[in-house]
Amino acid sequence: MRPDWIAVDWGTTHLRVWAMGPEGIRAEATSDNGMSRLSRAGFEPALLGLIELWLSGPPIPVLACGMVGSRQGWHEAPYRTVPCKPLLAGALAAVPVKDKRITLQIAPGLKQVRPADVMRGEETQIAGALALHPGFDGIFCLPGTHSKWVQISAGEVVSFQTYLTGEMFALLSQQSVLRHGMTSEVWDDDAFDQGVADGMARPERIAAHLFRLRAEGLIADLSPSAARSRLSGLLIGTELAAAKPYWLGTRVILVGSAAISGLYARALSQQGLETETLPAKDCTIAGLALAAGALTKAAE
Amino acid sequence: MRPDWIAVDWGTTHLRVWAMGPEGIRAEATSDNGMSRLSRAGFEPALLGLIELWLSGPPIPVLACGMVGSRQGWHEAPYRTVPCKPLLAGALAAVPVKDKRITLQIAPGLKQVRPADVMRGEETQIAGALALHPGFDGIFCLPGTHSKWVQISAGEVVSFQTYLTGEMFALLSQQSVLRHGMTSEVWDDDAFDQGVADGMARPERIAAHLFRLRAEGLIADLSPSAARSRLSGLLIGTELAAAKPYWLGTRVILVGSAAISGLYARALSQQGLETETLPAKDCTIAGLALAAGALTKAAE
Repeated sequence: MRPDWIAVDWGTTHLRVWAMGPEGIRAEATSDNGMSRLSRAGFEPALLGLIELWLSGPPIPVLACGMVGSRQGWHEAPYRTVPCKPLLAGALAAVPVKDKRITLQIAPGLKQVRPADVMRGEETQIAGALALHPGFDGIFCLPGTHSKWVQISAGEVVSFQTYLTGEMFALLSQQSVLRHGMTSEVWDDDAFDQGVADGMARPERIAAHLFRLRAEGLIADLSPSAARSRLSGLLIGTELAAAKPYWLGTRVILVGSAAISGLYARALSQQGLETETLPAKDCTIAGLALAAGALTKAAE
Repeated sequence: MRPDWIAVDWGTTHLRVWAMGPEGIRAEATSDNGMSRLSRAGFEPALLGLIELWLSGPPIPVLACGMVGSRQGWHEAPYRTVPCKPLLAGALAAVPVKDKRITLQIAPGLKQVRPADVMRGEETQIAGALALHPGFDGIFCLPGTHSKWVQISAGEVVSFQTYLTGEMFALLSQQSVLRHGMTSEVWDDDAFDQGVADGMARPERIAAHLFRLRAEGLIADLSPSAARSRLSGLLIGTELAAAKPYWLGTRVILVGSAAISGLYARALSQQGLETETLPAKDCTIAGLALAAGALTKAAE
């Protein structure tokens, strides 16, 4: 059972761990001990709680990415500045741990000075995506709570831009006046497509598009499933209108979960752009494996 | 102390009442018994709790506007359809009450069929604003949680458009990841102006503008007061970009509280448009007074 190394994706709300062998994933575990729930002293016990059964013999390398490396995390891994390679073995932050059965390294995030932008965790997915697509030049889109559009050239992150799209969807669908008309999780492709079209055509009207969902619910029998799907389309369409310089006439690879990548692929396809998709989890593990491999090599 | 009539502004979160005489306001009271806190049976006791001391002699007319007339309110006053006059005495909804010391009429809201839009309460402010500016042709802007731009011609509401701007500000500044960088209520005019300029110049980038506030807080020492003020400017600037057909080259009167109207006046002034402002409260009371006067006249 003892793994060669352990991969850790540690975000704001979740902790995910994988026991890794030469053949790939041997075991995995998840908890909701995200960064936001932990004090500094709580990180090591939270990690050990998930990986305890995998530990024996000499220290096992643990490679982690995500908000665990932020100032409010376990140990700050200062941002590296783009343009640069997404991940560099020499730049991993070595974190002192009490338990002698592990060593821990955290991947630093990336920052862009102007316009100011930051990422933590996505740099590892990007490194992994590049490992899966060697020599890729073009655009990675990492949709999610904070969607990122990332320009890659010669193996480096040249520039990137983050959109608050996913968080806006969550706030608007769950906490705004619109929530009253969105009590269904049934998906409506046509309503999503209409939202994308409206958002792309008149992105500046986003706040009016939003209230119109409420008004149509009150006076035009807009169904809860259509309202929720159109909201998603409106926000993604507005993002695509702004991100056009990133995707127009270029090769785009989506890196994300199947559900959210599917929505972006559908919206971009409406604009005549066919995309590929890489699962975010595969990219995270491939990125951390690069770092683990580099460490192993350096130790030999 | 007995008033000639009682004015009531009853919204989602607040109940405001004024005892009215020929000279104007004699007394006023407020509670947080808004529509959202009340079951149907709770409205009459909530109202009486505030106006009890004013009641004596024959029934006193009570004129109300706002969400109290919605389907989830005390008694539905069905929307009237624009284009139409903002308020019509004959269209007030008479509400049965148990207490014989009052009679109650609720002003109906307005709806627009295409694009779908609705208002409740603002129609009364508009009627009042027209009473204070007889013969006005132009645009009323009613900034707030759900800002409204209203085209007036020949005493009628011709069309209107609602923006979720104020609600987005509340959600983003209090419940999103941005809240961490907005722990100050100190105002920063320069940051607000920059937000307006950014929002107007690239409104489609709103979700990226928003994340940039977070990134600048992390890596560029953006202060909490500047972040919060710029957020306000970004959202108002984005609204103004979309509402340009309403305000460009026309006469605009702002109807709202001093604080929020001041922000819109400042933002529009940057665009070379000087506006007038009418206090929302004055307009509400003037609108309800029109209705009360019409009823009194009809009764004579």
